Amino acid sequence: MPSKVQKFNEYRQKMNDKILASDNKVIKRIFNLDTNAFKEGHLPVKTKELLGLVASAVLRCDDCIQYHLETAYKNGVSKEEMMETMSIANLVGGTIVIPHLRKALEYWELLEEENTL
Amino acid sequence: MPSKVQKFNEYRQKMNDKILASDNKVIKRIFNLDTNAFKEGHLPVKTKELLGLVASAVLRCDDCIQYHLETAYKNGVSKEEMMETMSIANLVGGTIVIPHLRKALEYWELLEEENTL
Amino acid sequence: MPSKVQKFNEYRQKMNDKILASDNKVIKRIFNLDTNAFKEGHLPVKTKELLGLVASAVLRCDDCIQYHLETAYKNGVSKEEMMETMSIANLVGGTIVIPHLRKALEYWELLEEENTL
Amino acid sequence: MPSKVQKFNEYRQKMNDKILASDNKVIKRIFNLDTNAFKEGHLPVKTKELLGLVASAVLRCDDCIQYHLETAYKNGVSKEEMMETMSIANLVGGTIVIPHLRKALEYWELLEEENTL
Amino acid sequence: MPSKVQKFNEYRQKMNDKILASDNKVIKRIFNLDTNAFKEGHLPVKTKELLGLVASAVLRCDDCIQYHLETAYKNGVSKEEMMETMSIANLVGGTIVIPHLRKALEYWELLEEENTL
Amino acid sequence: MPSKVQKFNEYRQKMNDKILASDNKVIKRIFNLDTNAFKEGHLPVKTKELLGLVASAVLRCDDCIQYHLETAYKNGVSKEEMMETMSIANLVGGTIVIPHLRKALEYWELLEEENTL
Repeated sequence: MPSKVQKFNEYRQKMNDKILASDNKVIKRIFNLDTNAFKEGHLPVKTKELLGLVASAVLRCDDCIQYHLETAYKNGVSKEEMMETMSIANLVGGTIVIPHLRKALEYWELLEEENTL
Repeated sequence: MPSKVQKFNEYRQKMNDKILASDNKVIKRIFNLDTNAFKEGHLPVKTKELLGLVASAVLRCDDCIQYHLETAYKNGVSKEEMMETMSIANLVGGTIVIPHLRKALEYWELLEEENTL
Repeated sequence: MPSKVQKFNEYRQKMNDKILASDNKVIKRIFNLDTNAFKEGHLPVKTKELLGLVASAVLRCDDCIQYHLETAYKNGVSKEEMMETMSIANLVGGTIVIPHLRKALEYWELLEEENTL
Repeated sequence: MPSKVQKFNEYRQKMNDKILASDNKVIKRIFNLDTNAFKEGHLPVKTKELLGLVASAVLRCDDCIQYHLETAYKNGVSKEEMMETMSIANLVGGTIVIPHLRKALEYWELLEEENTL
Repeated sequence: MPSKVQKFNEYRQKMNDKILASDNKVIKRIFNLDTNAFKEGHLPVKTKELLGLVASAVLRCDDCIQYHLETAYKNGVSKEEMMETMSIANLVGGTIVIPHLRKALEYWELLEEENTL
Repeated sequence: MPSKVQKFNEYRQKMNDKILASDNKVIKRIFNLDTNAFKEGHLPVKTKELLGLVASAVLRCDDCIQYHLETAYKNGVSKEEMMETMSIANLVGGTIVIPHLRKALEYWELLEEENTL
């Protein structure tokens, strides 16, 4: 049975494929930029993933948070570093970010479980 | 069995009825305005629906997006025009709009299916 | 079987415990402030709960709305006062607040049912 | 010489007159609602003004904050009550509300000066 | 003496040049997309400009509003069509959009003056 | 004559002093947290400043951006790193962030000038 993490990624992939198949150039290029912007540059990948995470958190986009949690996790971000990033999001963005922190921590634990299987 | 589109509309209708029954004049008038604002005026209905769609998309309100997708669909908006509208939302509002684009395209396909039955 | 209100509170409590266990001082203090800010001060608790509700509503945070609906309900806020508060949220924050008003009224009815059992 | 408060109100009035002269019914009704929503109802005017203030603050609209500061001031809201309302805005909406708190306190002092002349 | 419209455009151009000179590829491509997205496509330029205007208005970005007002004006949008677009922004985005409507109408009048000279 | 950077800091300091003098505990603690959250922790100060910058940028708070630009500058962030951080803000938050990028680059140049005097 697919895990919650797998389901999220499958839905994401399925709809991304449909979106790209619709042949809208502007959207295609935005998707393309989204990959490029988080590649190693003057800043290392890990820092960029934390930037993506905190931006997603203050803008309160759960899907974006989950995406960056997964790439952050894969790039060696520790739970403490993730929580510290989220603490800045909660301070700057206010207590309305707390419900997203709850879901973020829940998703992080799923990523940890997935990884130890 | 009611479709996802029907369920959305039934819940929406049920709660709107309760809201209007609560007899709050300000809310009643806002609901009323919501109907009037999208009627034919200096701009045609179709353009207004696209304006409602792009505003809902950048403000990331899935229920509002679905409502305007349905009225846009009924007013003859094509899939290409809908995607072009959403591409402007994604550019102006950023990649945080992408998860809403995924749901919007999914809902559009449901509207197409519904219509061909 | 736990009610929807109970389930919401249990998930909330479970994740809050995990968040506090993660030992991030900044987050701990924000949680602490969240309790203090709504205590009796120059303004009575009831007014503060309505302030929390309208802020949550215009920022469109369903979990925050539900939390403040419950504390408002427990502090004797009437349905009319709640709806009047939400009407200001709908006017100031626009029709994108309406979907949150639907959920708020639904949750309020659950709180009323819970209470009459 | 007109004070900063007078200038703000004069510009506001001048542009409101022009907006209403443009004869757009939807906008006219929104302006009308804006007056009605803050009238005495199930909640007293003072509470409503604080609701308008906190909503304006978390949505970070300086002009809206100034408008509600003035009506709050005229309805007998004390500085302590205003600050308590703003403290909830800062907690719920985050530290990005702080620059608006600075301007709000500055405007409040202008209102106090204006009043003692 | 340069008009307010000219000053806005000069500052905008000067800083855009500096931004593009900084040689950040992601930003360069976003600027590029911004030009492409509003070109004639399945939707005419005029409709796209109104979409850009309403998106900018509900997101309350004065500079973005002014930019789209100018391109809308140049593409033959009438004052009535502009106001109808802004009325949808005010309804969907709430009364916090009103201060931006004031500035928008003021800027529109400047564009009209500029044009009759 | 005080520079633009000095003026910004003086106004900020003057109003912060007044805010703290108003003796609202919740606000005092938020100000206190704001200092603590950006101290060296699991993440280095420099990374935290970039997190504060990107969060401020997507939430479009010019004063917050300027504050983090200054602390980032003092902590050795290079112009290229700052621009890369802002590029992520522009991608995630959309083109409505561009006007804030213009002001950010302008302020960065002022910081550079200030420093070479």
